[in-house]
Amino acid sequence: MSAQIDLKLKNIGLLATPYGGRAKGGRDQGAISFVPDAEVGISGGRFFYAGPRGGCPGAAREIDCGGRLLTPGLVDAHTHLVFGGWRHGEMARRLSGDSYLDILKSGGGIIETVRRTREAGEEELFEKGLALLAEMLSQGTTTAECKSGYGLSLSAEMKQLRVMERLAREGPLDLALTFMGAHALPLEYAGDRAGYVSLVCDEMIPAVAEAGLARFCDVFCETGAFSLEESARVLRAGREHGLLCKAHVDEIDAMGGAEMAAEAGCVSAEHLVRASDEGIRALASSDAVACLLPTTSFCLDKDYARARDMIAAGLPVAICTDFNPGSSPCLNLQFPMYLACLKYRMTPAEALTAVTLNGAAALGLCAETGSVEAGKRADAVLWEARDLDYIFYRFGGSLARATIKNGEVVAGNI
Amino acid sequence: MSAQIDLKLKNIGLLATPYGGRAKGGRDQGAISFVPDAEVGISGGRFFYAGPRGGCPGAAREIDCGGRLLTPGLVDAHTHLVFGGWRHGEMARRLSGDSYLDILKSGGGIIETVRRTREAGEEELFEKGLALLAEMLSQGTTTAECKSGYGLSLSAEMKQLRVMERLAREGPLDLALTFMGAHALPLEYAGDRAGYVSLVCDEMIPAVAEAGLARFCDVFCETGAFSLEESARVLRAGREHGLLCKAHVDEIDAMGGAEMAAEAGCVSAEHLVRASDEGIRALASSDAVACLLPTTSFCLDKDYARARDMIAAGLPVAICTDFNPGSSPCLNLQFPMYLACLKYRMTPAEALTAVTLNGAAALGLCAETGSVEAGKRADAVLWEARDLDYIFYRFGGSLARATIKNGEVVAGNI
Repeated sequence: MSAQIDLKLKNIGLLATPYGGRAKGGRDQGAISFVPDAEVGISGGRFFYAGPRGGCPGAAREIDCGGRLLTPGLVDAHTHLVFGGWRHGEMARRLSGDSYLDILKSGGGIIETVRRTREAGEEELFEKGLALLAEMLSQGTTTAECKSGYGLSLSAEMKQLRVMERLAREGPLDLALTFMGAHALPLEYAGDRAGYVSLVCDEMIPAVAEAGLARFCDVFCETGAFSLEESARVLRAGREHGLLCKAHVDEIDAMGGAEMAAEAGCVSAEHLVRASDEGIRALASSDAVACLLPTTSFCLDKDYARARDMIAAGLPVAICTDFNPGSSPCLNLQFPMYLACLKYRMTPAEALTAVTLNGAAALGLCAETGSVEAGKRADAVLWEARDLDYIFYRFGGSLARATIKNGEVVAGNI
Repeated sequence: MSAQIDLKLKNIGLLATPYGGRAKGGRDQGAISFVPDAEVGISGGRFFYAGPRGGCPGAAREIDCGGRLLTPGLVDAHTHLVFGGWRHGEMARRLSGDSYLDILKSGGGIIETVRRTREAGEEELFEKGLALLAEMLSQGTTTAECKSGYGLSLSAEMKQLRVMERLAREGPLDLALTFMGAHALPLEYAGDRAGYVSLVCDEMIPAVAEAGLARFCDVFCETGAFSLEESARVLRAGREHGLLCKAHVDEIDAMGGAEMAAEAGCVSAEHLVRASDEGIRALASSDAVACLLPTTSFCLDKDYARARDMIAAGLPVAICTDFNPGSSPCLNLQFPMYLACLKYRMTPAEALTAVTLNGAAALGLCAETGSVEAGKRADAVLWEARDLDYIFYRFGGSLARATIKNGEVVAGNI
């Protein structure tokens, strides 16, 4: 007896998906399965069949996809989704020539968002986060990572994490939660970096781990943020408490952060704009994924990471929004997908892998999501497009026509 | 007895609009009227009142704007909206290092679109254009310019113009139509530039003018397209047949095109990336508006026009999408609005003028649209925003919540 198919997506003009249960090495990043005239069967919220027309059993509910393109649901493996306020006022300073670090030093930037996040109530943060999740879903994102790091005190970090955890539980996306107490030095610790690092390592991390509020621990290793040594200490403390490690490295200054991240056994290294050849090799030899954030380079009008060198070195590349109120107020993954082609010179196939399977790999979720394959969560995007190149071409809005999450059409219309 | 108010928009958190019946000089480009807690009354498809709460008579129909930002409807004064096919396949060539002119020389680029446009039926082109207009409207554009120039033969240019004219008549936006037969040299005239210029001047322009199918005449003055002398000849022929002139100048090479455009009495000069100081001064002394196209610089990964120098020289700047299948497949004006701040260093107020009143000026429509003032067409955008800076900050999608055209809510929901 065949399985019960709950939903059949038929008349898919082109199914484009990476495949394989884990992030492939960079050299295979462009290996995509293209199935024209495809259909997909969903059973119990998971893909049961994905292949040519005629291979899927009938279902009670069938949706005609009108010959459109279907891809896996997008995975945004790097966001700072929950925060108080916005920072559109900062643009005037940036237009007048102040750098990101100038603004940070004068109490703007992250510090301003920390103030607003500490002031905000949990309900207010939750409602705001929920609206953003709806926006993401309408643009095809079905799984996202979400970092704390705008609290920078034990109570405010825990508050932020509780909001994130409630969003994960009650919201429409799968969320992977990351503790990032070491995001910036709060004003009250100015001049006492060691004191704050101790607070993060000795109080925050144990509390977060005990409450089970995060799976990952992240750190901003950068001039003006945390040194290599401080960052390594934070990641060590995270590991000791059972958290998997991530690290923001080599974004603005080449500090050897990539090497540190590889040494620390990170599951992903973020930004990597200034990563050295040696750092790229070290990460390629580790289990890490490179989470590249081209929208941030674009917004800060800075250089772009060397994605082609990373792919050539066999380092899997994920592309994420880095959504945050300062350096990347863009939630729509289709824009960094375009930048990945324009600025990183990635092919559409490589970039598709970067926002699906490799994003999942950066979150340890390759077995669950990131490709349209039998057994995985039935997360997919139906695009207002007939072929893959098109969604990497017509940018500036969203071509997501409908988003399917756990086998349900949750946004758009078909 | 007071006028009949058909529709009242109340509880507008902030009304932001340029003002004055014509394009202001560049020095005043940032002069915007900000009215907090405003309301707007509409009568007979035109604004009747725009000002503080309490000043507008009651109306049968009232819409609560929920404290949101209201601006004039956007005016996109430079698009190539009607064409056959798309060119997403070209990206692979650009990724491998081919330039725009390389692709053009090998029969790709415009020539490919010409082939597809000649092949396409009128109904097909009309339906495709209608879908694009709906997309524009949903993103806040209420008036647009639309150029021919993908036919490049008498019959195909006339076909393209007939489609544009039908879109203007039956579609939801006000469209201003431009004849641009001198967009590229068609293959059948390779080696006979003079012959093609004669065809444009002696056959196409008279036919277009006689049929009343266009208000403007445009020319692509550029290395690989048309020389200064050829361009001046085309514009002269246009004027002699009653068409107002526009010119694509100094986009890729500094040719003195800005000076030529000023000398020819153009109502607008387009691109201007390489315009000389002298050319900017010449345009500032003329009646022309500078139509800048930052999305094209972005897509081609090239330099950006010197908007600040133009504004300082008193040259009014409009910002447009340049929507076309090659160098700017982006219809959403919110993206070039963001680029205007990021790359041109314009303020949000200057950029708002650039996509409203100065866009209208480039189309000779300042008395009709481009600002929220009594007597003008009731074209407006209600934004998912509370202040002006925000729509120049949260980019990557569209924050247009609802679009009002001639006093009717035609897209979105409020």
